[in-house]
Amino acid sequence: MSRRRYCPASFADVKLTGPFWRERLDVVLSRTIPSQHVKLDEAGILESLKLPQPPPPLTIPRNAHGFTMQVFWDSDVGKWIEAASYTLSHRRDADIEAQIDAIVDDLAKAQSSDGYLNCWYNGREPDKRWTNLRDNHELYNAGHLLEGAIAYFRATGRRRFLDIMERYVDHIAVIFGTGPGQKRGYPGHQEIELALVKLYRLTGDRRRLDLAAYFIDERGRQPHYFTEEARARGEDPAAYWAGTYEYSQSHIPVREQTKMVGHAVRGMYMASAMADLAFELGDDDLKRACEALWRDVTTAQIYVTAGLGPSESNEGFTEPYDLPNETAYAETCASVALAFWAHRMLHLDLDGAYADVMELALYNGALSGLSREGTHYFYANPLESRGQHKRWAWHACPCCTMNVSRLVASIAGYAISTSDDGVAFHLYGGFETMVALDGVRVALREASRYPWSGDIAIEVDPQAPVTFDLKLRVPGWAKDATAAVNGEPISLTPERGYATIHRRWSKGDVATLRLAMPPERLYAHPSVRADVGRVALRRGPLIYCVEEVDNPGAPVQTLTLPRDAEIDATWRDDLFGGVVALTASAKRLVPGGGALYSSAPPATREAPLTALPYHLWANREPGSMQVWIAEAGERE
Amino acid sequence: MSRRRYCPASFADVKLTGPFWRERLDVVLSRTIPSQHVKLDEAGILESLKLPQPPPPLTIPRNAHGFTMQVFWDSDVGKWIEAASYTLSHRRDADIEAQIDAIVDDLAKAQSSDGYLNCWYNGREPDKRWTNLRDNHELYNAGHLLEGAIAYFRATGRRRFLDIMERYVDHIAVIFGTGPGQKRGYPGHQEIELALVKLYRLTGDRRRLDLAAYFIDERGRQPHYFTEEARARGEDPAAYWAGTYEYSQSHIPVREQTKMVGHAVRGMYMASAMADLAFELGDDDLKRACEALWRDVTTAQIYVTAGLGPSESNEGFTEPYDLPNETAYAETCASVALAFWAHRMLHLDLDGAYADVMELALYNGALSGLSREGTHYFYANPLESRGQHKRWAWHACPCCTMNVSRLVASIAGYAISTSDDGVAFHLYGGFETMVALDGVRVALREASRYPWSGDIAIEVDPQAPVTFDLKLRVPGWAKDATAAVNGEPISLTPERGYATIHRRWSKGDVATLRLAMPPERLYAHPSVRADVGRVALRRGPLIYCVEEVDNPGAPVQTLTLPRDAEIDATWRDDLFGGVVALTASAKRLVPGGGALYSSAPPATREAPLTALPYHLWANREPGSMQVWIAEAGERE
Repeated sequence: MSRRRYCPASFADVKLTGPFWRERLDVVLSRTIPSQHVKLDEAGILESLKLPQPPPPLTIPRNAHGFTMQVFWDSDVGKWIEAASYTLSHRRDADIEAQIDAIVDDLAKAQSSDGYLNCWYNGREPDKRWTNLRDNHELYNAGHLLEGAIAYFRATGRRRFLDIMERYVDHIAVIFGTGPGQKRGYPGHQEIELALVKLYRLTGDRRRLDLAAYFIDERGRQPHYFTEEARARGEDPAAYWAGTYEYSQSHIPVREQTKMVGHAVRGMYMASAMADLAFELGDDDLKRACEALWRDVTTAQIYVTAGLGPSESNEGFTEPYDLPNETAYAETCASVALAFWAHRMLHLDLDGAYADVMELALYNGALSGLSREGTHYFYANPLESRGQHKRWAWHACPCCTMNVSRLVASIAGYAISTSDDGVAFHLYGGFETMVALDGVRVALREASRYPWSGDIAIEVDPQAPVTFDLKLRVPGWAKDATAAVNGEPISLTPERGYATIHRRWSKGDVATLRLAMPPERLYAHPSVRADVGRVALRRGPLIYCVEEVDNPGAPVQTLTLPRDAEIDATWRDDLFGGVVALTASAKRLVPGGGALYSSAPPATREAPLTALPYHLWANREPGSMQVWIAEAGERE
Repeated sequence: MSRRRYCPASFADVKLTGPFWRERLDVVLSRTIPSQHVKLDEAGILESLKLPQPPPPLTIPRNAHGFTMQVFWDSDVGKWIEAASYTLSHRRDADIEAQIDAIVDDLAKAQSSDGYLNCWYNGREPDKRWTNLRDNHELYNAGHLLEGAIAYFRATGRRRFLDIMERYVDHIAVIFGTGPGQKRGYPGHQEIELALVKLYRLTGDRRRLDLAAYFIDERGRQPHYFTEEARARGEDPAAYWAGTYEYSQSHIPVREQTKMVGHAVRGMYMASAMADLAFELGDDDLKRACEALWRDVTTAQIYVTAGLGPSESNEGFTEPYDLPNETAYAETCASVALAFWAHRMLHLDLDGAYADVMELALYNGALSGLSREGTHYFYANPLESRGQHKRWAWHACPCCTMNVSRLVASIAGYAISTSDDGVAFHLYGGFETMVALDGVRVALREASRYPWSGDIAIEVDPQAPVTFDLKLRVPGWAKDATAAVNGEPISLTPERGYATIHRRWSKGDVATLRLAMPPERLYAHPSVRADVGRVALRRGPLIYCVEEVDNPGAPVQTLTLPRDAEIDATWRDDLFGGVVALTASAKRLVPGGGALYSSAPPATREAPLTALPYHLWANREPGSMQVWIAEAGERE
């Protein structure tokens, strides 16, 4: 059967050769992953796997609601193993493998004879397992451990961790379901669904897919599981600290949801799992639910940086167009998970709109979470600062650290997809792979300095001449795109964001794509209160920001950019190993007599403006920062 | 000895005849005070004075730090008695007096034999009195009860409550001080200092003034009392939930403080007490400390509405120019207390700059806390809303309710001051009084429709011709002011905000002052990030805002006001019994294709703009609101 549908090429089969992501990958390989192991050790997380008796005092105290973030620690271990395993696909490393094997030893010892495996419960509250799915993340932890086990198996072929986790999944499948005596529960924090689909793809065991589908479809049904569960604990369900089940997107069944609500990371993981299931099951109803949520997020709830979730109080969504800048929560994990979701949507429909958002998240809201040197992080990614935001070396809830490292370590997996008769490039920037098309092995070598330059060349090198579709993504931001094959211009008529070059390809053929990358102004929908009268700058896939270190003398909030000021793109060798900066002749608001309020408007003076890519902010001396710059005025 | 210094005329000696404050006063008399008694009863606060044994369950649970707001309840009772007593000066009321007497009965029973009086401690934790001044508000409660007792005595001549409170103050003076065996403590929440100065002024008992001075000067000394006290409770002082003693302005001695920090209401009460003491003691060093704090607040930390304290987390100050609009905390109590402070500063120096801020607070940030019908309140007073802000009928911490009612009930006390040879008018709007000048009784009748109109007439009616200074405040906002005596124009040369008419006044003389009140645009200092590119509207002492109910069709945040648009002032009989509305031909930003971000700026269309006084917002149907309106652009 011919496979017309596009599937992602595995990151392990794609080589990274371009300067941008190669540098980020090297940092994650050489600095981030090792330093994260040190931090997991220092934080007591590795020790917690050993189930010491009696358990040591809590490292993270219980909060007013009686729970501690320490119950999430298993997930951090799982995510680190996953991220580390991805780096092993690039470069095997005996030290890291020994560290992982030591963790797997601990997990093996911690596992109960019935397969149950949760170091918090087995270590402290063995009689309370499965009593608080709403808050205590057992299934979430299981999901992350499972993803770690799958990644480690794929990287090394070692099955021990995978065996442990398959036993645990077997146990979970006994406990949960619609059968007699089973609990009709599902995770308070979605995640295991993604892991189960991955396990199905690895093993072909259909029961894994069914369990994932059960968790998704059971969610939000009445009588509400979390309500029953709270009553069983002797608690008043109405006293739920989060107030509403919207927090975990379990307020109504997922297929009825049309607005993205609640905790952003939970929502993104859920939507990713829904897309996975729609793909695997051919479930068009589920696909339509995904599409409704996608429309809601992308037309009313996403920051221009692809940050998601304005509010700290629920780590999530509030209402349409509520996108404050300085207080933006925009958790790194949420943008990482948005990339997951967009990538999955893209494989339901090869539509560049999904790839545009995926790319936006990768280069902006997700990447901003990792410092330049690779050992400091942002949990929240505001779009404005007065200088109070500093990257941290670790966090009481370190979820974001390993989410961004596992994304960067597997970034090549987002670049290319294949079908039986075609190859699609979603990302550019130096990706090489070998694919089989119509039974012929074809080497593909994409070379470019993307995202700094839009000049892209793809060498096509088949073992024998072969006919296939080369699909090249023409990003939504690219208003001027041209292409050629072997130097001969071809007409470029992208459909849904992809230009198709259908021909018989021979060794030595070169397709080139030229995407003009002028600096651009962006304006928000007028209902975005925070951005009225403001403008953002973009070049290619990169959103820019102004930082005080590049615009010294006063907070950057006093900069205003005239609507007619020319914006220049300049290569700056001296910054971050080379970046494209945007510069303009702008204005500074100048304090008058020092009065706080005055009937005279502030005076202005000419002032240069320098903007750098947003993901690079807060890597130099602290100071003010802003994405949305005040406009000096429209002259009508 | 001639008294050259100006002292406020008591509100009980000033009759309110003008429409603006008369209406507010009537509402407070007839609706607010009675309804507050009902609420104190419903909330269990009145019951708590009866020390029922065993105590009933907590109405307000203990928070994560182990304390409950219920420890503040005595203060609510004191403040209600104070506010109610002020209304009695306007109109005696047997029902209210019976309610107060019943409370006084309970307090008499609750008082310990040694004079100690705190219904929380005596009712629940009698062995813990004076063990947590930092958090538990014993001295704050004492202060409010004392202010209530003084007000009730002044209104009715009944001494019982005052006697109770003087016994308590005697006890406090035994416990606290620098003598051997005394505790070197002071209140975690300043307030008693103001009450003690009032008691000194009532009784002439110098020990009360000394105790107030002790509390102020002991504050912030090392070794730090709150640190020692926490250790004595067996607690780690470093675990203080507020993090820093800046929260209660006790981080350093008060005379060394030059920046207003921490909890706004505490800071305002402290500064008010400092000004009181500087006045009574002629303490120029303390006066200079007040002036430094004043400069800091008024040049960098005050909202245009006279709101104070942008942050909810500390109910207080953050850093210079940090004045976000939608999340502004700007507690009603803080603006009320700012009026207290400004009034006291004005009597250290008759400088209109103080009166300007006092007036701004009265008409805007404080008055906005009370609903039009008098039974609903704002605790926080944001300068922008998307419609989520609703006035509430009561609050777990009802401090603001009685603060605004005691202010309105005594508003006439802010209008006029006298010295031996002069009368100063600070406020206008219909104030009449009788004063003695150079031994001659002089009736003064100020008539105006202020703040709606700046046309002011003052009839001077001495028993016999007498020479004195009539000092008329020319507000800082009044750029065009003219005056006449008996119709003859006089030259007006205000000094520090007051124009002095020195002459021999005879029966029938009329001084008139005409303050032009054009609508004005206000701009914030460019360091106020939230207001860059925005404009506020003022007319006279009133700050205006746009509400969706007057500007329907879309959130008001989509309105932009061209810099050159003419702003008209229009009398609107149909709104709130008559108000001056401001109207302009403005623009609306119009959504384009519905995209959240676009490279095309939003289109605009002509749209009328109607602004009403800020203090009236949220009295009609809910909707968006904004004080700082986007400017449609400067054309240079």
